[in-house]
Amino acid sequence: MNEIRGVLLDLSGVLYLGDRPLSGAVDAVARLQGSGMPVRYITNTTRRTRAQIHLMMAGMGFSIAEDEIFTAPGAVRAALKRDGLTPLLLIHPDLEPEFADFPGDVPDAVVLGDAGDSFTYKNLNRAFRLLMGGAPLLAMGNNRYFREADGLSLDIGPFLKALEYAADVQGTVLGKPSSDFFHGAVSDMGLEPDQVLMVGDDVEADVQGALDAGLQACLVRTGKYRPGDEGRIEAGRSRVADDLSAVVDGLAV
Amino acid sequence: MNEIRGVLLDLSGVLYLGDRPLSGAVDAVARLQGSGMPVRYITNTTRRTRAQIHLMMAGMGFSIAEDEIFTAPGAVRAALKRDGLTPLLLIHPDLEPEFADFPGDVPDAVVLGDAGDSFTYKNLNRAFRLLMGGAPLLAMGNNRYFREADGLSLDIGPFLKALEYAADVQGTVLGKPSSDFFHGAVSDMGLEPDQVLMVGDDVEADVQGALDAGLQACLVRTGKYRPGDEGRIEAGRSRVADDLSAVVDGLAV
Repeated sequence: MNEIRGVLLDLSGVLYLGDRPLSGAVDAVARLQGSGMPVRYITNTTRRTRAQIHLMMAGMGFSIAEDEIFTAPGAVRAALKRDGLTPLLLIHPDLEPEFADFPGDVPDAVVLGDAGDSFTYKNLNRAFRLLMGGAPLLAMGNNRYFREADGLSLDIGPFLKALEYAADVQGTVLGKPSSDFFHGAVSDMGLEPDQVLMVGDDVEADVQGALDAGLQACLVRTGKYRPGDEGRIEAGRSRVADDLSAVVDGLAV
Repeated sequence: MNEIRGVLLDLSGVLYLGDRPLSGAVDAVARLQGSGMPVRYITNTTRRTRAQIHLMMAGMGFSIAEDEIFTAPGAVRAALKRDGLTPLLLIHPDLEPEFADFPGDVPDAVVLGDAGDSFTYKNLNRAFRLLMGGAPLLAMGNNRYFREADGLSLDIGPFLKALEYAADVQGTVLGKPSSDFFHGAVSDMGLEPDQVLMVGDDVEADVQGALDAGLQACLVRTGKYRPGDEGRIEAGRSRVADDLSAVVDGLAV
C-alpha cells in the first residue's frame, strides 16, 4: 500500500455521537493536525447545515475550519447549480437554510435528504409524480440507517429505493459512496486517492465507497458499527480499528 | 390447453371501478354462476375488509358468497395464525377491523398493506427496528402504484422495497402475484391450477402471476389496462378480451 499522506474523517459515529464527542476523538484529531498531515471531514449528515455542524463541533472542542468539511448537501447544491435545476426538497427542516437560494416555483428535480418526519406519504407521492414526469432524482446518500440515542433509524437509502422502484428510475447519489464526492475532498488536499485514508463507521458508504474510489479505508468499531460488519468489506481489503485513537496510533504520527 | 373447469376473477377493474359495476359485469357473473362452473374472486385491495367488499358488491347487484372472496389481507391473516405471529400493522385504518383479533402486545412480525397516510417515518421506523430484530416481513402485494382521482399514487411495493433495503431482508408477498395465493383459491374449488382461468386487468399481478402459478389467464381491456400491456405477458401465453362479458362468451357457458 502507498504511504498515507492525508486523512479523511467521517463525522457522526467517528468523532461524535449525538451532541457528545466520542472518547479520545478530540485528542486524536488534534494529534493528526499536529503531525502536519492534511485532514478533511466528509459527511452524509443531512439534518444540519455545514455552518451548524461546524459550530456544534467547535462546541465539542474540535478545532477545524468550516471549509474543511465536505457535506452531501453541498454536493447536491453544486449539481443543481451546474444543471440549472429547481429542486423539490425532501429534506429535514433544519437543512432548509442550505437551499434557501433556490427560489424557483416549479420544481424540475427531486432532492432526497434524510427528511425524517418530513417523509410523509403526501411528500413522497409528490416526489413520485414529479419523477413520473421525467424529473431527475438526486440523493444525498444511500445509507440504510443511522444510530440515534434510542436505536437505529431509517436513513435516505430506503426512501431512495422506494422512489426508484415506484417510478422505475435510477437516482444519482451525490454524497458517499459516490467516488466524485470522495475525490473532491482528496483533491482539496492536493493528493491522489491512493495516498489518502478514509476512516468511517459505515461499512458501505464510508469503507467500501472509499475503496471503490481508489482510497485506502479503515472501519472503526464505534457509531453504527455492528459486529460482523468487517465481513461485508471486499475480501482482503478490510482494515479495522477500535476507534479513531487507535487509527491515529497506527499511523504513528 | 386443458379444458377450463373453474374461473378466478379479479375485482376492481374487472367487475367494478370505484363504486360502480362495469358494463355487463353483473350479467356475466350471473351467466358463469348459472353454468354451474365454480367461481372465486381474488383481490389485492387492502383499503377495505372482506365484509365491506362483499357488502359493496351486493349493493352493485353481484350475488356472491363472502367466503368466495379471497383477499390479500386474508392471506396475511392465515399466515399469521399458522405461524402464531403477532403483527405490527402498517395498514390503512379502514382495514384495521380485519386484524382486530390479534391482541398481542409485543409484535414479532411486520405486516405491510397500502397504508396511505399511515406510512409515517415513525411507523416505518418502528417496523424497521422490528425487522432488524429478526421479525418476518409480510406484504399484501408489491404493486408499484395505483390510480387515484387526481393521479397516480404510491402503492405497497415502494414501501416493501424501502424496508427490505433498510434491514437487508427479503419480504414475503402473500397477495397476488404469489402462487400460494392463487393456489388457495384454486384448491377451494377442488380443481388443479391448469383447469382454472384467471381473469384480471393487471398484467403483472393478475396475468403473469397466474401463469407463473400454473393457471390459464386472460387480460381484460378494462380497469387499469393500458394499450400495449399485452406485450408484457410472457411470449405465446397472452390471451386478451375486451371485458368480462367477452370472456364468458368465449367460454360458451
